Amino acid sequence: MGSLEDRNPHHFNPLDLEEFRTQAYQTIDFIINYYQNIETFPVLSQAQPGFLKSSFPNTPPNKPQPFQTTLQDVQTKLMPGLTHWLSPNFFAYFPSTISTAGFLGEMLCTAFNTVGFNWLASPASTELEILVMDWMAKMLRLPETFMFCGSGGGVLHGTTSEAMLCTLVAARDRALAVDPNRDVNKLVVYGSDQTHSTYAKACKIAGIAPENIRTICTTLGSEFGLEPRLVSEAMEADVAAGLKPIYLCATVGTTSSTAVDPVDGLADVARRFGVWFHVDAAYAGSACICPEAGLITGSLSTDPEYLKNKQSESNSVVDFKDWQVGTGRRFKAIRLWMIFQMYGVANLQSHIRSDIHLAKGFEKMVNSDSRFEIVVPRRFALVCFRLNPPRPKSKPKPVELLNRKLLEWVNSTGRLYMTHSIVGGIYFLRFAVGATLTEDRHVAAAWEVISEGADHVLRDES
Amino acid sequence: MGSLEDRNPHHFNPLDLEEFRTQAYQTIDFIINYYQNIETFPVLSQAQPGFLKSSFPNTPPNKPQPFQTTLQDVQTKLMPGLTHWLSPNFFAYFPSTISTAGFLGEMLCTAFNTVGFNWLASPASTELEILVMDWMAKMLRLPETFMFCGSGGGVLHGTTSEAMLCTLVAARDRALAVDPNRDVNKLVVYGSDQTHSTYAKACKIAGIAPENIRTICTTLGSEFGLEPRLVSEAMEADVAAGLKPIYLCATVGTTSSTAVDPVDGLADVARRFGVWFHVDAAYAGSACICPEAGLITGSLSTDPEYLKNKQSESNSVVDFKDWQVGTGRRFKAIRLWMIFQMYGVANLQSHIRSDIHLAKGFEKMVNSDSRFEIVVPRRFALVCFRLNPPRPKSKPKPVELLNRKLLEWVNSTGRLYMTHSIVGGIYFLRFAVGATLTEDRHVAAAWEVISEGADHVLRDES
Repeated sequence: MGSLEDRNPHHFNPLDLEEFRTQAYQTIDFIINYYQNIETFPVLSQAQPGFLKSSFPNTPPNKPQPFQTTLQDVQTKLMPGLTHWLSPNFFAYFPSTISTAGFLGEMLCTAFNTVGFNWLASPASTELEILVMDWMAKMLRLPETFMFCGSGGGVLHGTTSEAMLCTLVAARDRALAVDPNRDVNKLVVYGSDQTHSTYAKACKIAGIAPENIRTICTTLGSEFGLEPRLVSEAMEADVAAGLKPIYLCATVGTTSSTAVDPVDGLADVARRFGVWFHVDAAYAGSACICPEAGLITGSLSTDPEYLKNKQSESNSVVDFKDWQVGTGRRFKAIRLWMIFQMYGVANLQSHIRSDIHLAKGFEKMVNSDSRFEIVVPRRFALVCFRLNPPRPKSKPKPVELLNRKLLEWVNSTGRLYMTHSIVGGIYFLRFAVGATLTEDRHVAAAWEVISEGADHVLRDES
Repeated sequence: MGSLEDRNPHHFNPLDLEEFRTQAYQTIDFIINYYQNIETFPVLSQAQPGFLKSSFPNTPPNKPQPFQTTLQDVQTKLMPGLTHWLSPNFFAYFPSTISTAGFLGEMLCTAFNTVGFNWLASPASTELEILVMDWMAKMLRLPETFMFCGSGGGVLHGTTSEAMLCTLVAARDRALAVDPNRDVNKLVVYGSDQTHSTYAKACKIAGIAPENIRTICTTLGSEFGLEPRLVSEAMEADVAAGLKPIYLCATVGTTSSTAVDPVDGLADVARRFGVWFHVDAAYAGSACICPEAGLITGSLSTDPEYLKNKQSESNSVVDFKDWQVGTGRRFKAIRLWMIFQMYGVANLQSHIRSDIHLAKGFEKMVNSDSRFEIVVPRRFALVCFRLNPPRPKSKPKPVELLNRKLLEWVNSTGRLYMTHSIVGGIYFLRFAVGATLTEDRHVAAAWEVISEGADHVLRDES
């Protein structure tokens, strides 16, 4: 590299502060304009594979493009390929959210750009994360054993998968440490057929043999919750076969239908077999900030193993790099802190209740139309329903096909976006409320479109 | 959860657009003010463990705090605990950077908040990432087999560790698939004593037995590069012992001293033993955008295994969730795209050369003072040096202690921040140039402080 000489570089200032101010203001205005007009775009992008290729040269520009050109490109070249996750008419998957406080927190995180891999590298990053993790645990009314101020603690992971992977590796290594053969092929993990698919992926990354990932069936009868008795039987059978159960994953709010596994009963089974018990509350965890959801958060406290680790036992500083896969870490805590600080717990609770309120409104509309039915009872802000019109016995109903057609028709209008799932062999539509900008009127308008779609597919069919 | 009722929620609007505009503008101004005054803060935070605890209540606020209070808290309560990674006087670890384009890209990423786990979920996110990955590969002059437009492709990972983990798992599973016993304990991986510590961690997460992680010694003689002959010998010995080599990690720009492993020779060894060859260029990879660094990028092209995977072979759409640990993923590509678009390749090259220019300037200062010496030849923008004054033979030199004292003295001034490392038993100081705001004058001032520190510790010692 001796040849990487100074070639008399011409002046290039990537952080001219006045330019930064002007362009950042303009970007804010661009974003506000986007939110103001977000309802004019088809919610689900209508782009075809490869749409972007012809819009840009296939080599990077050698010279700078004017900022206005860049914003123009975002508007004209990228926007048609965006699915508008923040649209008030986005009812697919689980919606993502945005808030002023969250956005400002993200700005500060980017602006400081600290790399808080250990305490020393930026004390405020670590200590603020400790603070907000305990605030969060208190808001969820978890026992002190889950908090830094007790004997526990928490960490902000980038994804659910990473949280699963870190606990899986801990459970795996604990088992291997007492096995003279260190035979990973004897280790077995458990979940249900409703556990998120990312769980099986995390298990494979951790080196669990695919045939040792037990997927226990759930049924409509138990509202798709994982039955402790079945887990216990599966573990007994595995032990009898010379295998070693190490990990049980329960879910509070499954992705398909927001089913809630009976955490209490499962914790008992986990304790009896001495396995690590992990609770995935990626979706419904936030609902637990409302005291009326106490049944669930109460159950969480039955599990002293969850989140326990050697760092929590120590009284010295926390090095968060040891709590995650990577080494580098952004100052994510400041975003969460801004949300607490600028909104307060009462408003966050109100926000959750408002989502539930909207979902209940939608549920009523479904119930008021005899052509539709609710497939599983609504728990949070997801309504699982399907078109299932009464018909003479002589004419069997192609219910799944009808609903597939309905979904396609609805999404193709671009006026809203929903997705589907299948549980217990039943194909259904998922109406997931939670986008920040969604109001009563959007839910009502969405129902209009769905109802019109039902007219359409039923007319076609007859 | 049937009890999670609508409790007549009072109005809470987390995204009032005029409030958003006002507060976002104010946050921009706050950030600019921070950059303008960044040199007035001690670079390394002088905070003590637990400093933050008394600044905030131990439960989250129930009611919102005014925005001005929040910004004030950032200034008065958090700032003292920040280590200023963006300070022009930050010469520790490897500096982090900031640019207007990167910041604006991050804003748009946050604003759209798309979750691009598969193509359909937001086509523009996936297609823009494909575009910028190919742009990046072209800028690095990699062969087409590394590009989507060839038979390869790339993905933006959150951390180096994640990239290592994903390739390790692929290498592990390829080996296990042809082993009837699926015995992970027979698999061996290779790196040097200069490979980043995150490598051993990734290996452990992937379930490689700790005793099968070979750490091959490097020496000053080979400038701390990993010698292909030693790797070859280690692999031969392992094969003879019935073990199975699966993975070799080379580094272009090690963390301690920016050593460059001889990628060409190592690739030959990797090919001969049929092992996965991974090149970690987390630091020095960016230097390879300058054509004069062609020696290194040329070598990279000898490795067709790197980045190859089954998705690259397919001609259909790319689902990036299958390229990473997690499922969710932010629209990170837009940040990289903004940087390309708003700066152009020529400016990015100039920026790299400017960092090198500053490091060379510092190197000259070190060389001009006979009390100091350069420990390993400078390659990029890191200068490895130490205080090692000429002394009579009768008086043995406590060189390491002198340098520890010097480092502590320099960092305690708060005027700059450096870190240290040890290679080949030699304790030395690392002066890493690369913070966005660093100019000649900061390097010169840093040298003044270091020189003053040398006077101080040598006076103390005599």
